Amino acid sequence: MTTFVLATHNEGKKRELLTILGPVLGADTQVLTAAEAGLADVAETGVTFTENALIKARAAAAATGHTAIADDSGISVDVLGGAPGIFSARWAGRHGDDRANLELLLAQLGDIAAEHRGAQFRCAAAAVTADGREFTTEGVMPGRLAIEPKGENGFGYDPIFVPEGSELSAAEMTAEEKNSRSHRRFAFDALAAILADEPNL
Amino acid sequence: MTTFVLATHNEGKKRELLTILGPVLGADTQVLTAAEAGLADVAETGVTFTENALIKARAAAAATGHTAIADDSGISVDVLGGAPGIFSARWAGRHGDDRANLELLLAQLGDIAAEHRGAQFRCAAAAVTADGREFTTEGVMPGRLAIEPKGENGFGYDPIFVPEGSELSAAEMTAEEKNSRSHRRFAFDALAAILADEPNL
Repeated sequence: MTTFVLATHNEGKKRELLTILGPVLGADTQVLTAAEAGLADVAETGVTFTENALIKARAAAAATGHTAIADDSGISVDVLGGAPGIFSARWAGRHGDDRANLELLLAQLGDIAAEHRGAQFRCAAAAVTADGREFTTEGVMPGRLAIEPKGENGFGYDPIFVPEGSELSAAEMTAEEKNSRSHRRFAFDALAAILADEPNL
Repeated sequence: MTTFVLATHNEGKKRELLTILGPVLGADTQVLTAAEAGLADVAETGVTFTENALIKARAAAAATGHTAIADDSGISVDVLGGAPGIFSARWAGRHGDDRANLELLLAQLGDIAAEHRGAQFRCAAAAVTADGREFTTEGVMPGRLAIEPKGENGFGYDPIFVPEGSELSAAEMTAEEKNSRSHRRFAFDALAAILADEPNL
């Protein structure tokens, strides 16, 4: 029996990660969420997605003695030079208020025209084993910012993000549609491939 | 008698610009502010400081038949990839609420350490003559974001911006100290030097 700890307290992320990781984890595998493992929040003091994912995974591995998996992700807007970036979850000043965050982002961009609303969803995934091996991957989902929120699915900035090649916001897609090509999917597919070759997790 | 129109409705900027431009403008010069010239607000649809300064100066020159001078300026934070940038004045979602803007920026950065709080004040200046000549310059004031607001002088992000080589925020400096080396000073000194060589303004 291999036990992985998923170092996130974000319910939306946890759902997505279990959906994505489920098929690649063997039957003899147990996944503990942050709440189940009794993990405390850790200060995300990094200045890149990868640094923050590693900080969370290291803390979870150290606290539990299991291989820990974490991600750090967010939205990067071209005309903002990549911001909100690592600050996506607290963009309106308070951590985790999805609605306030996306409404602020729309208000900041104001009437910036469609051709300047390019954006990406970005994800860094990290795995840290109890004996200190560290692995990181990245995934990107290109698209653009909508003019107004649409859709009720997903979480975070999904209602104002229109993936490339789509007219629907990520919150108008089913979980299957979004997860089939999301930043988180690409990052965790790559991480799963690495872990599949790694002994003694 | 030469008449210049200063295309700004921002009182703080108007004060600074008149202080900076005063000594370089000849005695036979009249400066009309945006209010005195009856200028309407124009949509700042550019995606750079220079584009927005030009948009404002062009509109003012066209509306008044005088040489128009405008600036667009803001604060660029390294760890935000240069944002707030052109969105500085409406960072909290509503145009011109200085206090809300700077408090949001501090909240967004949270406990990001001092070595990652590098920032710049940036200014683009533009002059457009009634017959369509266009001139632009740029100025930068390097520094870093403070942890909390300090000082009562100036405007905008001055209370949370600590210029390089100083322990004081820009809002703790006198107008003379700040203007002697500000982003706006460098941009307008350069613009004044260009205009001094230009006939028929």
